[in-house]
Amino acid sequence: MIRAAVAGASGYAGGEILRLLLAHPDIEVGAMTAGGNAGERLGSVHPHLTPLAGRRLEETTVDVLAGHDVVFLALPHGHSADLAAQLPADVVVIDCGADFRLESAEAWTEFYDTHHAGAWPYGMPELMTAVGRETGKQRSVLAGARRIAVPGCYPTAVSLALAPGLAAGVLTPEDVVVVAASGTSGAGKGLKPHLLGSEVMGSMSPYGVGGVHRHTPEIEQNLSRAAGSPVTVSFTPTLAPMPRGILATCTARLAPGTAAAAVRSVWEQAYADEPFVHVLPEGQWPRTADVVGSNNVHIQVTVDERVGRVVVVAAVDNLTKGTAGAAIQCANLALGLDETTGLPRAGVAP
Amino acid sequence: MIRAAVAGASGYAGGEILRLLLAHPDIEVGAMTAGGNAGERLGSVHPHLTPLAGRRLEETTVDVLAGHDVVFLALPHGHSADLAAQLPADVVVIDCGADFRLESAEAWTEFYDTHHAGAWPYGMPELMTAVGRETGKQRSVLAGARRIAVPGCYPTAVSLALAPGLAAGVLTPEDVVVVAASGTSGAGKGLKPHLLGSEVMGSMSPYGVGGVHRHTPEIEQNLSRAAGSPVTVSFTPTLAPMPRGILATCTARLAPGTAAAAVRSVWEQAYADEPFVHVLPEGQWPRTADVVGSNNVHIQVTVDERVGRVVVVAAVDNLTKGTAGAAIQCANLALGLDETTGLPRAGVAP
Amino acid sequence: MIRAAVAGASGYAGGEILRLLLAHPDIEVGAMTAGGNAGERLGSVHPHLTPLAGRRLEETTVDVLAGHDVVFLALPHGHSADLAAQLPADVVVIDCGADFRLESAEAWTEFYDTHHAGAWPYGMPELMTAVGRETGKQRSVLAGARRIAVPGCYPTAVSLALAPGLAAGVLTPEDVVVVAASGTSGAGKGLKPHLLGSEVMGSMSPYGVGGVHRHTPEIEQNLSRAAGSPVTVSFTPTLAPMPRGILATCTARLAPGTAAAAVRSVWEQAYADEPFVHVLPEGQWPRTADVVGSNNVHIQVTVDERVGRVVVVAAVDNLTKGTAGAAIQCANLALGLDETTGLPRAGVAP
Amino acid sequence: MIRAAVAGASGYAGGEILRLLLAHPDIEVGAMTAGGNAGERLGSVHPHLTPLAGRRLEETTVDVLAGHDVVFLALPHGHSADLAAQLPADVVVIDCGADFRLESAEAWTEFYDTHHAGAWPYGMPELMTAVGRETGKQRSVLAGARRIAVPGCYPTAVSLALAPGLAAGVLTPEDVVVVAASGTSGAGKGLKPHLLGSEVMGSMSPYGVGGVHRHTPEIEQNLSRAAGSPVTVSFTPTLAPMPRGILATCTARLAPGTAAAAVRSVWEQAYADEPFVHVLPEGQWPRTADVVGSNNVHIQVTVDERVGRVVVVAAVDNLTKGTAGAAIQCANLALGLDETTGLPRAGVAP
Repeated sequence: MIRAAVAGASGYAGGEILRLLLAHPDIEVGAMTAGGNAGERLGSVHPHLTPLAGRRLEETTVDVLAGHDVVFLALPHGHSADLAAQLPADVVVIDCGADFRLESAEAWTEFYDTHHAGAWPYGMPELMTAVGRETGKQRSVLAGARRIAVPGCYPTAVSLALAPGLAAGVLTPEDVVVVAASGTSGAGKGLKPHLLGSEVMGSMSPYGVGGVHRHTPEIEQNLSRAAGSPVTVSFTPTLAPMPRGILATCTARLAPGTAAAAVRSVWEQAYADEPFVHVLPEGQWPRTADVVGSNNVHIQVTVDERVGRVVVVAAVDNLTKGTAGAAIQCANLALGLDETTGLPRAGVAP
Repeated sequence: MIRAAVAGASGYAGGEILRLLLAHPDIEVGAMTAGGNAGERLGSVHPHLTPLAGRRLEETTVDVLAGHDVVFLALPHGHSADLAAQLPADVVVIDCGADFRLESAEAWTEFYDTHHAGAWPYGMPELMTAVGRETGKQRSVLAGARRIAVPGCYPTAVSLALAPGLAAGVLTPEDVVVVAASGTSGAGKGLKPHLLGSEVMGSMSPYGVGGVHRHTPEIEQNLSRAAGSPVTVSFTPTLAPMPRGILATCTARLAPGTAAAAVRSVWEQAYADEPFVHVLPEGQWPRTADVVGSNNVHIQVTVDERVGRVVVVAAVDNLTKGTAGAAIQCANLALGLDETTGLPRAGVAP
Repeated sequence: MIRAAVAGASGYAGGEILRLLLAHPDIEVGAMTAGGNAGERLGSVHPHLTPLAGRRLEETTVDVLAGHDVVFLALPHGHSADLAAQLPADVVVIDCGADFRLESAEAWTEFYDTHHAGAWPYGMPELMTAVGRETGKQRSVLAGARRIAVPGCYPTAVSLALAPGLAAGVLTPEDVVVVAASGTSGAGKGLKPHLLGSEVMGSMSPYGVGGVHRHTPEIEQNLSRAAGSPVTVSFTPTLAPMPRGILATCTARLAPGTAAAAVRSVWEQAYADEPFVHVLPEGQWPRTADVVGSNNVHIQVTVDERVGRVVVVAAVDNLTKGTAGAAIQCANLALGLDETTGLPRAGVAP
Repeated sequence: MIRAAVAGASGYAGGEILRLLLAHPDIEVGAMTAGGNAGERLGSVHPHLTPLAGRRLEETTVDVLAGHDVVFLALPHGHSADLAAQLPADVVVIDCGADFRLESAEAWTEFYDTHHAGAWPYGMPELMTAVGRETGKQRSVLAGARRIAVPGCYPTAVSLALAPGLAAGVLTPEDVVVVAASGTSGAGKGLKPHLLGSEVMGSMSPYGVGGVHRHTPEIEQNLSRAAGSPVTVSFTPTLAPMPRGILATCTARLAPGTAAAAVRSVWEQAYADEPFVHVLPEGQWPRTADVVGSNNVHIQVTVDERVGRVVVVAAVDNLTKGTAGAAIQCANLALGLDETTGLPRAGVAP
């Protein structure tokens, strides 16, 4: 049995990693560590994780984490680099934070205003598939990796929505516009007034408007890779009255000379062999509830010929495929397991 | 006391008109009519309208409606024209349906596939204010009107969001992109599987994607009037897990040569004297919960200089300012009352 | 124009008082005070109160509050007594806290563990009506009062549900069992992990189980007064995934010898002349959404003959009739206005 | 591989059985049948069941169902008996409907008003454990069974909450009072106005008040068995604004002479060896969100000495342990598999 430690186990991402590991046939839960909650029963912070409820959270230290085969880091941004540097090189380290996602030090500094820690192999194997130029290559990179950066939740939805069309040249890279709605767990467990239940229930609101959300450079990095040229994105995230789920509505201009009828098949072909990314039958649109708790991405595409834009909508669970599920998927690849091992392929609806 | 009848009183729009009339100092509720629910106690379909609970719904006939000073029509699309034609010319008729909103018979036929009934004065006085060219003119048209078409809910949010910038030339009329989230009451009370509570709670989903939603031509009509040239819009509506409220995220390209710093004041000036449209202080973004139950529109604007787009977000209550509140506002104008009479100016939050 | 100050204006109860005052024809909003939020724009804490958004919150001091005709205290429990003692005796002071609700110093000490400040006239005129023995008496007490204690939210729902039956002797005072569900605003705006949107949406949970909730002695005080003998209550509050509303399911044993068919009319008669308490038609059960934003109480009663228990269900909006609406109602009585002035008599649904 | 058919696959219970089977290591999904939806892609009614989305629903006929090792019936009440009678005797038939739950033909006729089909072994192995008198016996009955009746959702929560105390004699069997809140999926997928999202969001309401809910006799049957004497229950179900979950607040009088301090351990001991029933640590109360998607029951107990009542609160997912999870658990026992095989032991939170 492979043993995994989870650092930052008291947060939502950490809790979701634990939930998924409980159903994983080949990985067992070792140490669970936290900051302020260290010493507490796990059941006091994650009562839903019943089988682990009686176990204690430990301090997040190298000593506690080393000695596991895999270490999942689910820490606040900026806390992964130091810890990772001290973990043995042969331990598989999967970072759910942003620290190692961006290749550009400039972009990092602009959006995070701290020192750039570098970039690790990027844990979104479907992206390269979508791109189509390098089928399989990204998976082979991850297969050998001992350090993997898990993509952000919004970048997962948006990149998988737009990459096939940009790679195939049916979308123009200029003037991409994305508006995405996220469940509140995407904002974490921090005690902020606007995250109180009384404030969020029955309400929609935008935040980080005007290109200032930190996921923007990661989205652009992915889309630029897909397009083979620089892509910038107008990205507006909104907070929706639901605990989980992201619905990303993505639009880009139809490339001149592209037949509208040929558009949808680009996505169908790109994801034909992907286990987790599903282009829905024509006319059926994604709903976040359908992917909740699963590692699935549901996608639909249409062309609005009146305005010359393609609209692609993707739904993911921000905590599963958007974070913890992707982390397990990456760990599976790194450990030589089947990529889908232990990952839910059906959502929890209604 | 002015007497009002409400046709289609059993639906959500009809119920909201009644709720507002109950607090109106100058208008009293006369006949309330329905289709299938005729004969029932109002309390059996709208138990929240306690003071009217014991009264009966009547059949929707000309005889029942005539003899009132004002008649509000809250009927399914396509049912207003015949009825309105038979009502006396001096009765103020306020139509909450789509029948008389579109000036273009072509657009009507394309989106509704029936005979175009014509166009009545359009009940959005703030639109012409926003445009700035004809201050006060639209209000004077409505002041003399005996037939008024109440704008649609999405068009209200989107038009008020974008009109000032288009009119002032700081937004280019090409490539406007709108993604809007609506509460479920916007879809009405019809018994459709996807509107069940089990399906909508915890879920976001798009619908009418690709420019096929019937509010599209109305939005374009308004924006074209504001811009003074044809505007087309990529419009994607989504269904959000809340009963009321619309959050419209609207983006358009910043016109070449426009200083970003000058943008926000265009909206502030356009709505400076409007009682119901409020540009929030810089940095504060609209939340739908803040306008629920009120006739307010909350708006915020910012420039995303990286991508050359302006993002405008507007929040309205789809049932109040989006329908019934606007209907009362129009009736006030038509009847020579102060435009704001009886209309809630604070939302019901949390 | 009567001028009112609101102390504790930044909380949910304070915000609701302001919302109601904005629609009150005879009272205008004077000073609004707060603790930690003093100095801020009201719009930064209550963006829904659009007409007051630009005004500033002041410090909560006697100097700021004195000089108003009415002062509403919406402070944390234990903060009203000192302040009230320093306000002029002829100012109408309406306390929304618990400080002056309990007549028994013992009960106060047991549940609040501090010094008992005393008891003010209790602002639930319908209670004495329900009791039936002293019609009108309680209203006359409130009419002359310059200090009034506003009832708690749960006690409002539970007392109005059970008082008529206890007063008429159709319910036995032994073994009353109440389970009530409350919206999250009842728990206030404090930043507690279990009140985060991610935690409350999609979840029901009990709290204060086993008779330890502080509203228990107030409920028992009211019911004992109604019964004319001591009543104890098994009271279990639960937190429901909604911002507002209380649904109180109250059961008591049918008194021996009482005909089941005679039960319902006891409630109908008790509240026949009450403007805000409504016994619904037979077979129609209260829904919290129907009273949201209004000062209404919806009640239904039935007898379960198999088990010999009467079940009474009451719905109120915890912030309106449960707090701020009752406060305005009390102020109206104290100021010699019609009791219903400015109070919403229709709920905001859907 | 064991092959299972699901009759009634288009409903919520049928969908949940399929979701659980997709994660079951020893049972595979065979035929999926429906009524009105027969012929449709499963993905059109259950888009969350991604791996089965492309398969078709078949007609519900004996021919289609026979030939499987297990048949799960998730049909409307009254439809199981005929079908079951025609299935081969050696096929394991698990009925999720009410048809075979009640032993008393009288009770059946009183609450269902049709012919009583009889009683099958009752699929709640934990009940007999809780009773304590016949440990293991119920499981051995189920182990040999080819016909099993799955308990109702409310009866599962209420029976497991109260049985240990009744069996141990610390609760008196007289005057049990239960108020339970259920998510809307418990009301099924039928198109009823009160189940629309606009009606249920933000609202709590009771239904079936006064002992008329059809789960009442099943609850009483279970509790009477536990108590060893007839138990009647005042049962009030309420509809809560969430898709899944039941919170049952159950109270009964503390038996005379029972020490309050001894009460809690009765439940701890009763469920010490149960894999799915968990008595939470003292002071921690169940939340429905913590059991969503899992087969767990979370229970807490306390004594309210002031009123002489014990309060027991239980949380279950109405679709999982309340229906489909129990169905799989029964099938596991009938098929000789480990009882917990394939059943989620952690909830999906937040």
